[in-house]
Amino acid sequence: MAQFRSEATASASLLTNPAKLIDSVETFLFDCDGVIWRGDVLIDGVPETVEMLRSKGKRLIFVTNNSTKSRKQYGKKFEMLGLDVTEEEIFSSSFAAAAYLMSINFPSHKKVYVVGESGIQLELKQAGINYLGGPEDGDKRIDLSPGQLMQHDPDVAAVVVGFDRYINYYKLQYATLCIRENPGCMFIATNCDSVAHFTECQEWAGGGCMVGAIKGSTQREPLVVGKPSTFMMDHVTSKFNIKTSQICMVGDRLDTDILFGQNEGCATLLVLSGVTTLETLQSADNKIQPHYYTPTISELLAAKDLANGLHSSLL
Amino acid sequence: MAQFRSEATASASLLTNPAKLIDSVETFLFDCDGVIWRGDVLIDGVPETVEMLRSKGKRLIFVTNNSTKSRKQYGKKFEMLGLDVTEEEIFSSSFAAAAYLMSINFPSHKKVYVVGESGIQLELKQAGINYLGGPEDGDKRIDLSPGQLMQHDPDVAAVVVGFDRYINYYKLQYATLCIRENPGCMFIATNCDSVAHFTECQEWAGGGCMVGAIKGSTQREPLVVGKPSTFMMDHVTSKFNIKTSQICMVGDRLDTDILFGQNEGCATLLVLSGVTTLETLQSADNKIQPHYYTPTISELLAAKDLANGLHSSLL
Repeated sequence: MAQFRSEATASASLLTNPAKLIDSVETFLFDCDGVIWRGDVLIDGVPETVEMLRSKGKRLIFVTNNSTKSRKQYGKKFEMLGLDVTEEEIFSSSFAAAAYLMSINFPSHKKVYVVGESGIQLELKQAGINYLGGPEDGDKRIDLSPGQLMQHDPDVAAVVVGFDRYINYYKLQYATLCIRENPGCMFIATNCDSVAHFTECQEWAGGGCMVGAIKGSTQREPLVVGKPSTFMMDHVTSKFNIKTSQICMVGDRLDTDILFGQNEGCATLLVLSGVTTLETLQSADNKIQPHYYTPTISELLAAKDLANGLHSSLL
Repeated sequence: MAQFRSEATASASLLTNPAKLIDSVETFLFDCDGVIWRGDVLIDGVPETVEMLRSKGKRLIFVTNNSTKSRKQYGKKFEMLGLDVTEEEIFSSSFAAAAYLMSINFPSHKKVYVVGESGIQLELKQAGINYLGGPEDGDKRIDLSPGQLMQHDPDVAAVVVGFDRYINYYKLQYATLCIRENPGCMFIATNCDSVAHFTECQEWAGGGCMVGAIKGSTQREPLVVGKPSTFMMDHVTSKFNIKTSQICMVGDRLDTDILFGQNEGCATLLVLSGVTTLETLQSADNKIQPHYYTPTISELLAAKDLANGLHSSLL
């Protein structure tokens, strides 16, 4: 199998020879929102594409910056949508946050404060890390009545911030106090996505909104564990013992997915089924060019009936 | 009266000769939180200091980045604390937002979406500007159920963002949609303060928290009308027809108050009764040096019994 050779790309090419791309890599990293599904609706042709790639012996990994679910919860979503994906094949930014804390041997007597949803908590729980906040603080209000004082736990040594549809001032203030007042307290962002397709109908303010709030109140930059930071990619390549040149990153966002792949020397394929339009890709303002672009991943199906290796000589 | 000559200041001096400073300017611009009061508690010696400065014929102006109240509401707060201050002497960032929109002849058929509290709305109302959002959206929740779509008003041509203790995802998403999807929609921040003393007991996440959230979801920089931007100073000098070299800016924050004064060539006096400690002022990391610093504004009282002009020759 030929390895994909990453080169500085002047401008993206329309994918016209999918068999060549498929043959050049051994692993496909798929972003989920905008590639596999939009909100809770599967994108046309995805089951057939996944099946075809598996039949060609490709390793498939599903990465998502959406931290609202744990890997187990994503497994159920894949199942509900009729896709056969194991928990081992899923890398969510909720898991990345827990994996990062494990990688630095986060002390067992310390705690994490969560601005986010249950996905982060479930991953922390599975990793044996103590946490507080999250959905439990969703209904708390602060009225700032004279004399009001918020106490905070001095044992909080990290604040993990992800998307939170029930964001409120209580959580923002609690996180701010921990980061500003607990010496050495880390500020970890699952992702900084400005918007995401939480429903299929429109773009919604994303995790970057909650992270931006805490940046604004702490004047600190977060450590980002999701795309486009390298942490998740390092974790994937180490776990499966693969080289990044053998990976094709498939995503719908230039500033996370494609940059994530490019940072590591992967082949990159932009799909136009999510947040990026062809106009955006081709505008003079855009500095991030994938190797290829294509309307949806089902375009890969054109390679279905071609034998493996047939096109490797074309690389 | 001698005009204060602003010079690049190597490091701040402890104020040892208040009469000299008082005599060198005709107007004092006081920040409020951390200078006049902390939360709802008056700082010791303030009434006597205000009275002494008035007796010396000084013009007093009270500026605050806190947008939660209108000038009228601040007038009531001053009255409740026993200080005789007129509405004309108050410049809040809530007023600055309305004044800015008036200065650009904001179209009467367009609307402002407010992320903030009643102060902004009252100032917009007084300026005859249509608005929506603010406290009315405080109890709205977004569950992101499948198929959910948020409609937004295409006539919103500006989003004004200030401190909001009832911040929620509904407001953040509404503001995000207006800025991202309404062509030419402005993003105006009353202030970007990271923290503020909303109660006297501790620091609370400030307007910079809400502004940071909208920066994160829109990837846009706001137009800031409060300190340290020049808009409020331009408005004050134009209204009273005074020169900035005749003004002393008194505040407790280096990155808003002192920078605000320095940007315009005012004399600057840092008080240590608010968020800035002597350690912060004198740390190697701090690049912002006021001309003078003093524990509280009541130190100015040492000039009480000195005749006007006595020390002008010392400048």
